[in-house]
Amino acid sequence: MRLHVPIKLRWSDLDAYGHVNNAAMLTLLEESRISVFWHGDLKVDGVADTAHAGAETLTLIGRQEVEYLAPIPYLREPLDIQLWLGRMGGASLEVCYEVCSPQGAGPSVVYARAASGIVLVDAATLKPRRISERERAAWSPYLDEPVVFNRR
Amino acid sequence: MRLHVPIKLRWSDLDAYGHVNNAAMLTLLEESRISVFWHGDLKVDGVADTAHAGAETLTLIGRQEVEYLAPIPYLREPLDIQLWLGRMGGASLEVCYEVCSPQGAGPSVVYARAASGIVLVDAATLKPRRISERERAAWSPYLDEPVVFNRR
Amino acid sequence: MRLHVPIKLRWSDLDAYGHVNNAAMLTLLEESRISVFWHGDLKVDGVADTAHAGAETLTLIGRQEVEYLAPIPYLREPLDIQLWLGRMGGASLEVCYEVCSPQGAGPSVVYARAASGIVLVDAATLKPRRISERERAAWSPYLDEPVVFNRR
Amino acid sequence: MRLHVPIKLRWSDLDAYGHVNNAAMLTLLEESRISVFWHGDLKVDGVADTAHAGAETLTLIGRQEVEYLAPIPYLREPLDIQLWLGRMGGASLEVCYEVCSPQGAGPSVVYARAASGIVLVDAATLKPRRISERERAAWSPYLDEPVVFNRR
Repeated sequence: MRLHVPIKLRWSDLDAYGHVNNAAMLTLLEESRISVFWHGDLKVDGVADTAHAGAETLTLIGRQEVEYLAPIPYLREPLDIQLWLGRMGGASLEVCYEVCSPQGAGPSVVYARAASGIVLVDAATLKPRRISERERAAWSPYLDEPVVFNRR
Repeated sequence: MRLHVPIKLRWSDLDAYGHVNNAAMLTLLEESRISVFWHGDLKVDGVADTAHAGAETLTLIGRQEVEYLAPIPYLREPLDIQLWLGRMGGASLEVCYEVCSPQGAGPSVVYARAASGIVLVDAATLKPRRISERERAAWSPYLDEPVVFNRR
Repeated sequence: MRLHVPIKLRWSDLDAYGHVNNAAMLTLLEESRISVFWHGDLKVDGVADTAHAGAETLTLIGRQEVEYLAPIPYLREPLDIQLWLGRMGGASLEVCYEVCSPQGAGPSVVYARAASGIVLVDAATLKPRRISERERAAWSPYLDEPVVFNRR
Repeated sequence: MRLHVPIKLRWSDLDAYGHVNNAAMLTLLEESRISVFWHGDLKVDGVADTAHAGAETLTLIGRQEVEYLAPIPYLREPLDIQLWLGRMGGASLEVCYEVCSPQGAGPSVVYARAASGIVLVDAATLKPRRISERERAAWSPYLDEPVVFNRR
């Protein structure tokens, strides 16, 4: 099962070519991830809104991969970022994404595919901590096949 | 052979964790790439400084992959981004990077490894155009083994 | 009369102090402005969504002033950016802002006050063009006293 | 006396109009400020490189004002940001800027004029702290007339 996260572009996401900059794409993915991991269906135990608010868990990015399929123009309506888990390990997980055109605006365009490897880290010791049973149960409906990259 | 490109951090590259943000990393790679492909040793024929200045060739990013090995703190001295080519195809190439601590500041730390797949595109037709013989000759000293990612 | 524009923060708006960066504030103001001038109640005749889509009018920023009253922490709910016109000239206008805490979340905090001087420019000739009668009529309900800066 | 701080543009400072974005301008000013206040001629006692490294003093921005005189295109050479103090109070100071074209590249263009009101704050108590005699002596050569804004 996929989560659909609406993410609004900003004018400053565009670069001088008039398209969303390649680095800005990772910021858009980050926003979709925060939306589901900090507040939403994939809530992580002990993750707080800020670094200073007594968070018990940090989510660190170990790796990221993006395949850019079509340039993203300025869009008034929010992108439909589809997000699921491609893998759940002991202390780590892979988040998979398809960055799609706004929902309900004609045939869907897939602008990009991506994956992020994430490690849960204890904020006090900075060591990896295991995914809890509660997290595992809550997240398992979103576990699916990892994204397939065609251009590797 | 590797190119060493000094890239200065900005304070705004840091996020609330006090480290360089994961998306900012792609901006740093972009700066190193522009430095060598627009002005430097890997100069592309017909690439101009801006989108509006009659460029004959565009360089499009098809894919990117980053492995984050250690968090980057604020650094006064420029990062040493080491850059080489992991592959040269007909109209495309792979740029490989190691993002290292400032040169001459004690033992070198590798903060990240990365690769970008780039396609040369004719600015008029927006179709891929072949790497010229002149480019191929100029670039071949920088062709080496592709970066190896450990966490795939 | 003021317009209330909800603007969502991004995690990357924060800097290493854990607060919204001073430069990111201008990006937030830009988003609120685009929302009302490109699509909303203060729609400008001939402004299109992108630089490449045949816009007849450009909106150029001549000056900006910001007074930072309180640091903005990471907020899950969108900021309430209140926006009005402090002046309407022949070809130029002053947009005034109060950047406030999310609506309906306890007593309102004013994080910042700001003003932007904007000139309407003909996209073909790049010369200032007069505010049309239609624009003037549509905008006049939002004309009010200019923002007062205390720290000049 | 003015300080000349070379600040390199990044490709991502440009927006879809092909010019440096109005908000990016504040990031460029920030870089010039950090360069002289953290490491250079206007060094502040007790300011450290990061928020986490035991800084005794923080520099907070109370207000900023920018007048945009000419659009900044992509420039290969660093901008020449000229910086001086327009006022020194008890715990606060005004930094003034002229953002100029790269040095030694023909007649100088002034792209923007700006000023930032800065307060020195004790990192422990978060209360303003007085400018020390040592700072005052070191900074006084850079005290000059405040920047004059023409479009207020």
